[in-house]
Amino acid sequence: MTVIIRAVAEKDKEPWQRLYDGYHRYYERPDLPQSFFDQAFDRLIAKKPGDFIGLVAEDDGKLLGLTHYTYHAHLWRPEGVCYLQDLFTAEDARGKGVGRALIQAVYHAADAAGVPSVYWLTQEFNYAGRMLYDQVATRTPFIRYNRPL
Amino acid sequence: MTVIIRAVAEKDKEPWQRLYDGYHRYYERPDLPQSFFDQAFDRLIAKKPGDFIGLVAEDDGKLLGLTHYTYHAHLWRPEGVCYLQDLFTAEDARGKGVGRALIQAVYHAADAAGVPSVYWLTQEFNYAGRMLYDQVATRTPFIRYNRPL
Amino acid sequence: MTVIIRAVAEKDKEPWQRLYDGYHRYYERPDLPQSFFDQAFDRLIAKKPGDFIGLVAEDDGKLLGLTHYTYHAHLWRPEGVCYLQDLFTAEDARGKGVGRALIQAVYHAADAAGVPSVYWLTQEFNYAGRMLYDQVATRTPFIRYNRPL
Amino acid sequence: MTVIIRAVAEKDKEPWQRLYDGYHRYYERPDLPQSFFDQAFDRLIAKKPGDFIGLVAEDDGKLLGLTHYTYHAHLWRPEGVCYLQDLFTAEDARGKGVGRALIQAVYHAADAAGVPSVYWLTQEFNYAGRMLYDQVATRTPFIRYNRPL
Repeated sequence: MTVIIRAVAEKDKEPWQRLYDGYHRYYERPDLPQSFFDQAFDRLIAKKPGDFIGLVAEDDGKLLGLTHYTYHAHLWRPEGVCYLQDLFTAEDARGKGVGRALIQAVYHAADAAGVPSVYWLTQEFNYAGRMLYDQVATRTPFIRYNRPL
Repeated sequence: MTVIIRAVAEKDKEPWQRLYDGYHRYYERPDLPQSFFDQAFDRLIAKKPGDFIGLVAEDDGKLLGLTHYTYHAHLWRPEGVCYLQDLFTAEDARGKGVGRALIQAVYHAADAAGVPSVYWLTQEFNYAGRMLYDQVATRTPFIRYNRPL
Repeated sequence: MTVIIRAVAEKDKEPWQRLYDGYHRYYERPDLPQSFFDQAFDRLIAKKPGDFIGLVAEDDGKLLGLTHYTYHAHLWRPEGVCYLQDLFTAEDARGKGVGRALIQAVYHAADAAGVPSVYWLTQEFNYAGRMLYDQVATRTPFIRYNRPL
Repeated sequence: MTVIIRAVAEKDKEPWQRLYDGYHRYYERPDLPQSFFDQAFDRLIAKKPGDFIGLVAEDDGKLLGLTHYTYHAHLWRPEGVCYLQDLFTAEDARGKGVGRALIQAVYHAADAAGVPSVYWLTQEFNYAGRMLYDQVATRTPFIRYNRPL
């Protein structure tokens, strides 16, 4: 398998949506409206500064995984930080290094952008993900609090 | 005590720095250079879009606490999210509602900005902070991973 | 304040029950029947091998706190381990070292029994307790699973 | 595969030791002396009241897994509790329900003993184990503190 990591492109809409829907189903958000996917995809394609960048993992013309990241300000680091928000590998493509390749690609993109600090959040019980994350990143003692809405 | 929460202003540099230094000492980052504080303060005063906003808690002319927050993109929420990065209350002003008032002020500012989703990260063992956070926010199961640098 | 830590005695029934009830209310188990307290107290007084031992903290004739511990087998340690199950300080006696003195007393009793390994479990969000525990013990990464009943 | 769960027997010493050594290596305790295994095995065979009971999972004459449990006093439950201390499946027998069958066997034994409350502790980052535990047990918010020795 030779996985290629590349920027998401207009032609990827359908397989990208299938993957992103799988991602949201994993987080128990099924039945998102089509407008949700349209809007997110348009933003990835628009490449507006400060907005999200999408990468996909492709093998033999098939999309196996995706990641979405952005940059934002950080008061202690003038160059800001890179926030990897979404990461997903198709179920039948797991265990082949797709997730790892996507994370590495974000690391490289962040270096190229001069913003080497990359972080992400994951649920404490995302065991499969954390098996990978423990190999390529450092678990911190930071936990997230949300305003109740 | 009548605490006023207001935007940080040029005249606050010295007491603001004392508070922000206390914050970094709490996180075991003592001896930060003066340039660190100069740069952070300049950014708070500059109010550049996408950069940090600073609020201070004042009582009878004395600064008792601070908070710094910013907005960043979120792929699932078109309006983005509000990230409350720093929160600190002077040690001799604890237990008087200063931290709570600062968080509430960020909530209100976020509402006014049309970005009601506010979140922050804290160390799992920040017991004193979490006693407050559990009252004004929701603990999530999300934990943070950092790229090793 | 000169707190004395001593074995629970027959005469302690009433103030002991008040403390133990406070402990169970903290864990959201109010309205336990009188038979529950009778049974537990009888066991502490009976001092049957393998059963629980009770200590109380007394100041000027008043009970301020309690702890209950037992010993049980451990397959890796021939001498077994000491399990500190209950620890409670009256609300108006907090912050005076009562909990610490009770834990230290269990440590000494365990040493005297030739079973130096002492452990206990606490809820992750027991912030007040953990402020103390972090000073006198080591947090482990072990979490508890229960059979659903 | 028809896995049989049965009490550990004298003839099992060699394969049992291989499994128990694998278990300790998982927890980064390699190179335990032979006396450690001799002593533990003797206790399992002796079946002394209050001491550990050992079960093994056998398939076609081969030992695939083990578990060791004991009973100890609990002040709130007159009948006591069942502590499942060790659980291990041979690496080449994973994913076949061996661990689950061993846990179920402990549940049944505990029921037969009139001590239905079964619990165990596991490291927060024991992802593979927790994938199973989340299916057969309830994660609690309890974490373990150890006396520093």
